[in-house]
Amino acid sequence: MSEKQRGKASILFPEPPLVLAAASVVGKKEGEGPLREYFDRIEMDPMLGKKTWEEAESELQTRTTNLVIEKSGLKKEEIRYYFGGDLLAQLIATSFGIMDLEFPMFGIYGACSTMGEAMGLGSMVVEGGFADHVIVTASSHFASAEKQFRFPLEYGNQRPYSATWTVCGCGSVILSKNKGQKRIGGKKPLAKVAGMTTGKIVDMQFKDSMNMGAAMAMAALDTILVNFRDLGVDENYYDKIITGDLGQVGKRLLLDYLVKAGHDIESRYMDCGIEIFDEATQDTHAGGSGCGCSASVLCAYILPKIRDGVWKRVLFLPTGALLSTVSFNEGKSVPGIAHAVILEKPDLQS
Amino acid sequence: MSEKQRGKASILFPEPPLVLAAASVVGKKEGEGPLREYFDRIEMDPMLGKKTWEEAESELQTRTTNLVIEKSGLKKEEIRYYFGGDLLAQLIATSFGIMDLEFPMFGIYGACSTMGEAMGLGSMVVEGGFADHVIVTASSHFASAEKQFRFPLEYGNQRPYSATWTVCGCGSVILSKNKGQKRIGGKKPLAKVAGMTTGKIVDMQFKDSMNMGAAMAMAALDTILVNFRDLGVDENYYDKIITGDLGQVGKRLLLDYLVKAGHDIESRYMDCGIEIFDEATQDTHAGGSGCGCSASVLCAYILPKIRDGVWKRVLFLPTGALLSTVSFNEGKSVPGIAHAVILEKPDLQS
Repeated sequence: MSEKQRGKASILFPEPPLVLAAASVVGKKEGEGPLREYFDRIEMDPMLGKKTWEEAESELQTRTTNLVIEKSGLKKEEIRYYFGGDLLAQLIATSFGIMDLEFPMFGIYGACSTMGEAMGLGSMVVEGGFADHVIVTASSHFASAEKQFRFPLEYGNQRPYSATWTVCGCGSVILSKNKGQKRIGGKKPLAKVAGMTTGKIVDMQFKDSMNMGAAMAMAALDTILVNFRDLGVDENYYDKIITGDLGQVGKRLLLDYLVKAGHDIESRYMDCGIEIFDEATQDTHAGGSGCGCSASVLCAYILPKIRDGVWKRVLFLPTGALLSTVSFNEGKSVPGIAHAVILEKPDLQS
Repeated sequence: MSEKQRGKASILFPEPPLVLAAASVVGKKEGEGPLREYFDRIEMDPMLGKKTWEEAESELQTRTTNLVIEKSGLKKEEIRYYFGGDLLAQLIATSFGIMDLEFPMFGIYGACSTMGEAMGLGSMVVEGGFADHVIVTASSHFASAEKQFRFPLEYGNQRPYSATWTVCGCGSVILSKNKGQKRIGGKKPLAKVAGMTTGKIVDMQFKDSMNMGAAMAMAALDTILVNFRDLGVDENYYDKIITGDLGQVGKRLLLDYLVKAGHDIESRYMDCGIEIFDEATQDTHAGGSGCGCSASVLCAYILPKIRDGVWKRVLFLPTGALLSTVSFNEGKSVPGIAHAVILEKPDLQS
């Protein structure tokens, strides 16, 4: 085992890649939520000027990616690879969204865990010396996801309280080789990726696609416990432990099971899906979801808090529910997966 | 730019990861084709004992992955990560196929280019010191793909001659850290991954989903020319240049356009989709396709030829067509992508 490899599924980077820049673009509803002041841009037109929901989501990726390049101060040509994904079948939002940028690209699918999976892969590629700068992006769109997974919007179906609301949003970061410099292009980096814990698929035989929080909670539980065990730490190692989109139901399950395992993380716990909408006024039931949920909250809210030292070390773990309409209609369960990255204040000494 | 980074999109590995083992499992039709004697296993039951086509494809992944572990002589616990994918929406064949193996896993989507994309990522992770052994797998199944992308089998639709036949097959390799040893577990490695060229999305505004060869040919063209330019080589650098599943139509386009660019590769060119079926007797029109096509031909036929020194250096580039039924039905084009790896005889001195 290399010195970087810790335990079963974790890595600590000797030269942690930097998060050089981050950008977030969200839709109108997200722009009316509690995090409204943090997003870079709120798109008031859910179609983003396009003809279909899928084109709208592609446009969301295009705009967010262009924005993060602009914010980084880098030239497009300085960025070597694109890692990205979305929730749609065959990743069409990503393919059509970033085509014109002409990056060598890796399509990633981890359901709503995509941002964690892609940041982990991107970090290994940067730290391994294979790229100086890479872009990592994940997006989701309420309407394209409803069309993909559920009912036509016109049908106006009822949703149980355990259901979540797919976020219309995109988050994009640039991961850069840590060459010791504090500033590249005049910018102070937002964070460093100190390490990662790669999730495995966890199947508890949950079969309710309207309660994905429960399915994903057990995957988050597994990844958190593996992270603690691999690194020989506990919850006190982190200022914040942040899941992607467990929502209210998944949150309760995760916290309860962690207490049974001897870890009370409630005081330092946060879920992006719970933060992004206001439970009392926005009628989103258990909270927000979609890979654009954790990606946009990361870029808008979490990374600046790390840069400013409010949180010095964060375990960020987007959570994914691995289902398709075909698997669901054939009676299969909804397994989950959670991919974690450890984000630290750039100048924090480990 | 690091010494490993070559030009725009290529890498040369200072310590090339080894392909320690490879396994291929295919269906009955593939087992009746010209490569029948090379596959590890031919499954005569297209359902593989399961109830649905999707479960059958998952079972194909399970069996192939277990077989490659067995062939490698490694214990499952010695393998750190799983990189894999398939053609189905939300990668359900992969998720349900490898769940019980409990590997930390990265879901990859590159359409039929998945094996090239995943081998590139896996190689960077191994060479970067983040894993000693990883598994890379890609699968497709004729019936699950027809259901996903085309018509119910019972409908018996006519297919134009430009169409390809999705291969029922799975290929799986183990990539291992090159520690200078010639043998791990008594096995001689099959090849080393000397380098890679990552593809970008190429959109020629082709709109015929029954002629994916044409769409993918332009992506293959781009990746081959980038590879030549990045490394400062030409076709004579390779004993063989092998695409994934361009088929007869795509092959002709690729070769003609390469001649226009000053490269006549015909004498050293091969396409997995053309090799796997017999054009005269198997009625598969332009050839085979699917990410299981290039993956199974790689594992059964190409890697042993490299091990035995018949070919000393091969450019292997699976090709993908980036479409979904939604993008197609909304009138979008079919863009392509091609991800290349450079495979060499294990003891070849560069």
